[in-house]
Amino acid sequence: MPTAAIAVIGDEILSGKYADENAPFLIGRLRAIGCDLRRIVTLPDEPEVLADELRRLLGFDHVLTSGGVGPTHDDRTFEGVAGALGVPLELHPGLLALLDRSGLAQTETNRRMCLVPRGAELVYGRSRFPVVRARNVWVFPGVPSLLRKKFDDVAEHFAGVPISTARRVTSGRELDVSAGLTAVSARFPGVAIGSYPRWDGDGTRERELVLTLESRDEAALAAAVAAIDDLLAAG
Amino acid sequence: MPTAAIAVIGDEILSGKYADENAPFLIGRLRAIGCDLRRIVTLPDEPEVLADELRRLLGFDHVLTSGGVGPTHDDRTFEGVAGALGVPLELHPGLLALLDRSGLAQTETNRRMCLVPRGAELVYGRSRFPVVRARNVWVFPGVPSLLRKKFDDVAEHFAGVPISTARRVTSGRELDVSAGLTAVSARFPGVAIGSYPRWDGDGTRERELVLTLESRDEAALAAAVAAIDDLLAAG
Repeated sequence: MPTAAIAVIGDEILSGKYADENAPFLIGRLRAIGCDLRRIVTLPDEPEVLADELRRLLGFDHVLTSGGVGPTHDDRTFEGVAGALGVPLELHPGLLALLDRSGLAQTETNRRMCLVPRGAELVYGRSRFPVVRARNVWVFPGVPSLLRKKFDDVAEHFAGVPISTARRVTSGRELDVSAGLTAVSARFPGVAIGSYPRWDGDGTRERELVLTLESRDEAALAAAVAAIDDLLAAG
Repeated sequence: MPTAAIAVIGDEILSGKYADENAPFLIGRLRAIGCDLRRIVTLPDEPEVLADELRRLLGFDHVLTSGGVGPTHDDRTFEGVAGALGVPLELHPGLLALLDRSGLAQTETNRRMCLVPRGAELVYGRSRFPVVRARNVWVFPGVPSLLRKKFDDVAEHFAGVPISTARRVTSGRELDVSAGLTAVSARFPGVAIGSYPRWDGDGTRERELVLTLESRDEAALAAAVAAIDDLLAAG
């Protein structure tokens, strides 16, 4: 299964001026197409920080960035990506041509939007407006409606084998089953088991316990579910 | 102003089984009390990954973790914090006493919840249930109602000097003012200026542009706002 990391970029998210909608959208989409999301980082508009942090994510199959692209002084994502990859920024002929086709003048500001890491490719997917990919870093805009559209244009590049899941809800307390859960988890290493207590609104009483099971191996999943059912019946 | 980083911990967030509510809550609260949030990372329940990632955050004044504490096999936050700090896990006498006071038996499972990094302190704040702090890492539960309560109990520890802000909305396009914004930004280095286009729902047309200004220096903020007003009036 392919792995991915998301970098949400922008001082406006860290300072709470805007709530990030893009990571929640991407989490759901990546899961649906079988891509294993391993990290999300939310970063300020500082090229050196971006370079350091993005460099650490390059070991995942795909790095998806959100935000920090555009014509203003606080749009520093491409500088950060270039720093992470150790390449300079260059005017991309395909993006310059796109300016012309879009009827935008080649002002300094507009040309700035065509400065991308050397070697970057334009991935068109299903749209006539491309997504910029530099090595394995896919650069998406921060505006949620634009990001959603562009992600769906190129989503097939991230697809893997979807996971099978199961879920049990019990009225028991987590403490009463945790030893049993640890044992079941050890018996089925290919099945990821999660345990999530739900509390009353005022946080004083455990209302119920949600158990989740996930695996790409359906037989192992079924066996682990049976073991959990036995555990809950015994409790 | 104190700096902070948030680590949201849990496979259930990365896989989309649960939407994180804690980072959005903490973003708003930290901003309100004048604490400068510099990073958010969302991490899997893997002690080695947690240790590596948390270690990189120790340079901020405060690191707030959310999730991965409790009695089950997937609760690995304390192991990760101990790894980041380079100390072993130890049974904390104060937490063992709390088990007794709460009427919980000293089973292996319950005692596991009392294993915290050597040197950890219990910070009581306004509640009789403490928050565990290991050096500058504050460990909060993942259950949103519990996290909110516990954060508010100890929030005074994170407080700094609040920021003054201003905001302007214009119908102009970002491209038309971006050169002017860059100039204003250069004149007022102590003022953070953000530029956020809003698009129509279908992502085809720029509807308006929101400009935000922030500073701890009120005089500089007022001067920058005046410069922005001149820029918009000239456009």
